[in-house]
Amino acid sequence: MTTSLRVAFIGLGNMGRPMARNLLADGFPVTIWNRTRAHADALTADGARLAATPADAADGADLAITMLADDRALDSVVGDGGLLASLPRGAIHLSMSTVSVEIADRLTASHAAQGSVFVSAPVFGRPEAAAARKLFVVAAGPQAALDRCLPVFDAIGQRTFRVGERPAAANVVKLSGNFLIASVIEGLGEAFALARKSGIDPALFLDLLTSTLFTAPVYKTYGSLIAERRFQPAGFKMTLGLKDVSLVLDAARAAAVPMPFASVVRDRILTAIAQGGSEDDWSAVADVAARSAGLDT
Amino acid sequence: MTTSLRVAFIGLGNMGRPMARNLLADGFPVTIWNRTRAHADALTADGARLAATPADAADGADLAITMLADDRALDSVVGDGGLLASLPRGAIHLSMSTVSVEIADRLTASHAAQGSVFVSAPVFGRPEAAAARKLFVVAAGPQAALDRCLPVFDAIGQRTFRVGERPAAANVVKLSGNFLIASVIEGLGEAFALARKSGIDPALFLDLLTSTLFTAPVYKTYGSLIAERRFQPAGFKMTLGLKDVSLVLDAARAAAVPMPFASVVRDRILTAIAQGGSEDDWSAVADVAARSAGLDT
Amino acid sequence: MTTSLRVAFIGLGNMGRPMARNLLADGFPVTIWNRTRAHADALTADGARLAATPADAADGADLAITMLADDRALDSVVGDGGLLASLPRGAIHLSMSTVSVEIADRLTASHAAQGSVFVSAPVFGRPEAAAARKLFVVAAGPQAALDRCLPVFDAIGQRTFRVGERPAAANVVKLSGNFLIASVIEGLGEAFALARKSGIDPALFLDLLTSTLFTAPVYKTYGSLIAERRFQPAGFKMTLGLKDVSLVLDAARAAAVPMPFASVVRDRILTAIAQGGSEDDWSAVADVAARSAGLDT
Amino acid sequence: MTTSLRVAFIGLGNMGRPMARNLLADGFPVTIWNRTRAHADALTADGARLAATPADAADGADLAITMLADDRALDSVVGDGGLLASLPRGAIHLSMSTVSVEIADRLTASHAAQGSVFVSAPVFGRPEAAAARKLFVVAAGPQAALDRCLPVFDAIGQRTFRVGERPAAANVVKLSGNFLIASVIEGLGEAFALARKSGIDPALFLDLLTSTLFTAPVYKTYGSLIAERRFQPAGFKMTLGLKDVSLVLDAARAAAVPMPFASVVRDRILTAIAQGGSEDDWSAVADVAARSAGLDT
Repeated sequence: MTTSLRVAFIGLGNMGRPMARNLLADGFPVTIWNRTRAHADALTADGARLAATPADAADGADLAITMLADDRALDSVVGDGGLLASLPRGAIHLSMSTVSVEIADRLTASHAAQGSVFVSAPVFGRPEAAAARKLFVVAAGPQAALDRCLPVFDAIGQRTFRVGERPAAANVVKLSGNFLIASVIEGLGEAFALARKSGIDPALFLDLLTSTLFTAPVYKTYGSLIAERRFQPAGFKMTLGLKDVSLVLDAARAAAVPMPFASVVRDRILTAIAQGGSEDDWSAVADVAARSAGLDT
Repeated sequence: MTTSLRVAFIGLGNMGRPMARNLLADGFPVTIWNRTRAHADALTADGARLAATPADAADGADLAITMLADDRALDSVVGDGGLLASLPRGAIHLSMSTVSVEIADRLTASHAAQGSVFVSAPVFGRPEAAAARKLFVVAAGPQAALDRCLPVFDAIGQRTFRVGERPAAANVVKLSGNFLIASVIEGLGEAFALARKSGIDPALFLDLLTSTLFTAPVYKTYGSLIAERRFQPAGFKMTLGLKDVSLVLDAARAAAVPMPFASVVRDRILTAIAQGGSEDDWSAVADVAARSAGLDT
Repeated sequence: MTTSLRVAFIGLGNMGRPMARNLLADGFPVTIWNRTRAHADALTADGARLAATPADAADGADLAITMLADDRALDSVVGDGGLLASLPRGAIHLSMSTVSVEIADRLTASHAAQGSVFVSAPVFGRPEAAAARKLFVVAAGPQAALDRCLPVFDAIGQRTFRVGERPAAANVVKLSGNFLIASVIEGLGEAFALARKSGIDPALFLDLLTSTLFTAPVYKTYGSLIAERRFQPAGFKMTLGLKDVSLVLDAARAAAVPMPFASVVRDRILTAIAQGGSEDDWSAVADVAARSAGLDT
Repeated sequence: MTTSLRVAFIGLGNMGRPMARNLLADGFPVTIWNRTRAHADALTADGARLAATPADAADGADLAITMLADDRALDSVVGDGGLLASLPRGAIHLSMSTVSVEIADRLTASHAAQGSVFVSAPVFGRPEAAAARKLFVVAAGPQAALDRCLPVFDAIGQRTFRVGERPAAANVVKLSGNFLIASVIEGLGEAFALARKSGIDPALFLDLLTSTLFTAPVYKTYGSLIAERRFQPAGFKMTLGLKDVSLVLDAARAAAVPMPFASVVRDRILTAIAQGGSEDDWSAVADVAARSAGLDT
C-alpha cells in the first residue's frame, strides 16, 4: 500500500500548499512545518499534523519533502539540529525546491553520512498546475529511492522524468529549463523591439509567430505578457528570475561551461532591477530591450 | 478569374522550383528565368515559357515574382536593364526572397518611380513545405496590391499574414523569425553543453524539454539535430545562417535596436565557420557551445 | 628632391585641411578638391591650386591623397570618371581615410587594373595632432610605393608604421586601434557604474587608475570625459563610433573572427543613439552603462 | 613612534612573505601565522615570532594583517575562535587580500560587534613589487583607523589611495582594477586574432599599439605575453582570474550593475579552463579568442 508512507512536508508556500493538500487527499499521513505558522494552520483542517520544528516533522517519517524558496531556506531546515539529524536511517529527504547544484551535491553526502537518502525532484509548473496535479517532476537519485517516491510523484504531478542517479542532475535539468524560458523571453524582447521600431503591430507579430514556428505554450504565455506589457501581478518575480539565472551560471561555472545567453539574461535582469522592476514579472526583461531601443515603456 | 494573372518567376532554386510548379499546376501562365539554365529547363515540361533574360520574363507580366539567394542576386536581376525597366506600369514585383530591409525600402522607391508596385512577401518553410503548399507567407505592401497577389499566395502557402503597408515590414518579420530560430539553437546548445557535462543523457533531456514546456516543432526539429549531432546534410547551411543573422543585425543597426542575442549568435556562427563548419547545418552552432565547454565534437 | 612630388589632395575636412596645409608649407605643389567648396577656398591662399573635379585634381599627379568621411564618399570621388580614370600610370592613390577593409581590397585591384598603385595609410590622431604634425601613420602597400610616400608621411606625422604589402592591412590595424579605444571606454563605463553605485567618488577612482596601472593617455583622456560626464562638444561623434565599430565587425565577419567585445560596444552605441545621444562624444557609451545600472545621467 | 605598533601577520604566501619581511626590516614587532608552517619558518630568522594559531597571533596585537587566497581562507582564520575573538578591543583587522565585497561588509559588522575595527586595504602589484615596497595600496575604513595604518602602508607600498569610510569600497576598487586588466587582455586577444588572420605580424602590431595610444605598462606586459603566446609560468593563474572576475560579478549583482564585458571575460576564462588551461597565465584568454577564429594555438 503506497499510502503507508509517512510524509513530512516542510515549506508551505504557493507551491507547497497545493502539493501537500493533494498528498492528504490521497490518504498519506502528512506532518507539516512552515516558518510562517499561518500557512501551516490552513492545512491542519485537511488532516495534516502540525510539527513544532523541521526536526520534529522529520522524526519518524519515511519521506521528508522540502519545498522552499532557496538554498538558505533549505540549509536552515536541514542543518544544525534540523531534519538531517532527525530523519530515520533509511528514510528519504525528497527535495523539490529549485535550489543549487552545489547544495544538492552537499546534501547527498550529508545524508549518506547519516544513513538517510537524498533525492532531488524539482518540478515545472505554477501553483495552478500544482493544484491540478499537472506538475512535471524531474527526479534524480538512487533507483530504489526513486521507486519509493513514485506514489508521491503520482499524487502531485502528471509525469515524472528520471534523469540519473546523481540527485544534482535533476537540479541541472530544472535550472536549464528555466534558463531556456528566460532565453525565450529575451529573444522575444529583442524581436519585439525591432518589430515595434519598424512599425509592426506587436499583437499581430505575436499571432504570426505562435501560429507558425513557435507554437509552444511558453511562447504564447510570455509572448502575450510582453506584447501587452502586462508585468503585474508577477507570476514569477524578477528577483526569483535573478536567483535562478544566477544558479544556472553558478552550475555552469562549476562545470566549466560558458553560457553567453545566460550572461546576457543576467545583465538584462540586473538592469530591470536597477531601473525599479524588482517586483515585476520576469518577462519585463523585454521592456529593458525596448528601453534600450529608445522605446517608451 | 484569378488565373488570368500573367506571372514571371525569376529564381528557380530549391524553393523557387516547387513554388513555380504549384503556380503552373493551378493554371497560371508562367514565364520563367534562372541564372542556371538547367533548373529552368526542368519547368518548361510543366508548361512554363522560358525567357532569355529577367527583363524579358517581366515584360508583359502582371506579377513578377523573385525568389533569389540574396541582395546581390536580387539587385542583379532588377537593375540595369533588368525587370525594373521592363515591368509594365501598374504591375507588381513580388519579392519572396529573404533579403534585407534596406533593399526592400530601396526597391519600393525604385518601382514607385517607374509606376510599378513593390510587394514583399518572404516565406517560412523548407522545400518540402513549398512542394506541399504549406508555406507561411508574410506579406507587406499596399492593400490593393496584396489583394491582387492573393491567388498566388493561396497557390503556394497554407496561410498568409499581412503585416503592413510598408513592404520592408515583411522582411523585418521574416528576419526576426529566423533570429528567433537561431536563438532557440543557441539556447539549446548551451543547455545541452551543461547537461552533457553534468552527466545527463542528451536524448532524455530533449524528450523532457519537448514533452513539457518546449513542445513547438522548432525545438523538436533542432533539438534532435543537436542531440544526435546530425549536421550533415545541411537543411539550412551555416553560411546562410550568417547571411540572415547579419541581415537582422543590419536592420537592427538601421533602426537603432541593440540585439545582444543576435550578436552572440553571430559570433557563434563565425566560430563555426572559422573552425571548418561552413557546410554544416546551422544547428551546428550547438557544437561550438560544446567545444567551448571542452566537450568532444 | 622629395618636393618634386605633385600631390592631389581630395577631402578637406577637419583632418584634411591641416594635413594639406603642412604639405604646402613643406613646398609640395598641391592641387585640391573638396565637395564643400568653402573648405577648399581657405587653402588656395596658402598656395593650393583648386581643381574643378576629383578627376581634374588627380590628372597629372604623382600622388593623390584622399581623406574622406567614409566608403561612400571615397567611392564617389574614385569611380565613374573620378580619380581612378585620370590618375597617371604609375602614380599612387594614397588613401588616408578610415574606411573599410573591403574597399581597400577593391581599390587595390581597381588601381592595379589601371596601372596605378593603391596605398592605404590611415592615421591616428585628432585635428590638433594633424596641425602639429603629430599623427601616427599606419601604412601598407608595395614597398617601393611606400618609399615614395615617405616625404608625405614625414610632413604630416611623427612616426610611420609599415604593416605589410597588402594595403588593407593598414585598415585592419587602424580599425583594431579604434576598437581598442572603444573597449577602454566600455570597460571604464562599467567600472565607473559599479564604483558610483558603491559610493566611490569617480574623480578619485580615475586618479587612482591612471596613477597606477592605466597610465596611457587614452585612459586619462576618456576617463576624465566619463568621470565628468563631459560629452559635448564631441571630439569624436557617436555616429562615427558606430561607423568604425561596424567596419571592425564587417572586417571580422569577412575574416571569420568572432569579437564579442566589439559586439557589446556596438549594442551600447546603438542604445546611446536610440536614447538620443547621436551627437555626443562616443565616450557617452559610459552613460549607457550608468543608466543600465539605474544611475541618473 | 610608528614602530610601537604590534603587528600580527596572517598569510605568508608569495605576497605575504615579502610584505611581512619589509615590516620586520622597518622594526615592527611582528607575530606571524601561516597554514603551511614552512613558509612561516622562513621569517622567524628575520625576527618574526611564530604563533600557534591565528587567534594566538592576534592576541595582544594592535594590528592584525591578513593576506590570504580567498574568502574561505579568510573566514577560516577569522571566525570560530579565530582572530575575531582574540583581537583586543580597539585593535584593527587590516585585510589586504583580494576578497569579496560581501565578506568585507560582513567583517565590518562582526568586528564592530566585538569592539575592534575592520579596515580593508587590498594592493595592486606582483610579488616583485611587494619585495621592492612598490605596491599600490587601496584603503578604506574609518579615517582614524586608516591614520593608524599609515606606517604599515608606507612600509610596504609606494602610494596609498583612500577611497572611503566603508571598508568594502576598497574591495570594489581592487576588483574593478582587475576587471579592467582582464578587459585589456580580452580586447587585445580579439584584436590580435583579427590582425593574425589578416596577415599582420603580432610583434609589429603590438609595437605600434604600445608606441602610440596604449603606452601603459598593462598593455606592454600583457601584450607581449599574448604576442609571444608565453602563458607559462603563470604570473597570475587562470583560476585566480576566474575567482576575481566572479567576485566582480558578485559585487555587480549585489549592486544591480550589469557588466557585459565582465560576463564575456568570465565565459572566455571558463572556456580556457574547459579546454585545459587552468594552470596558464590568465592572459591565455587571448588564445581562446584565437581558437575561436580558427587559428592554431
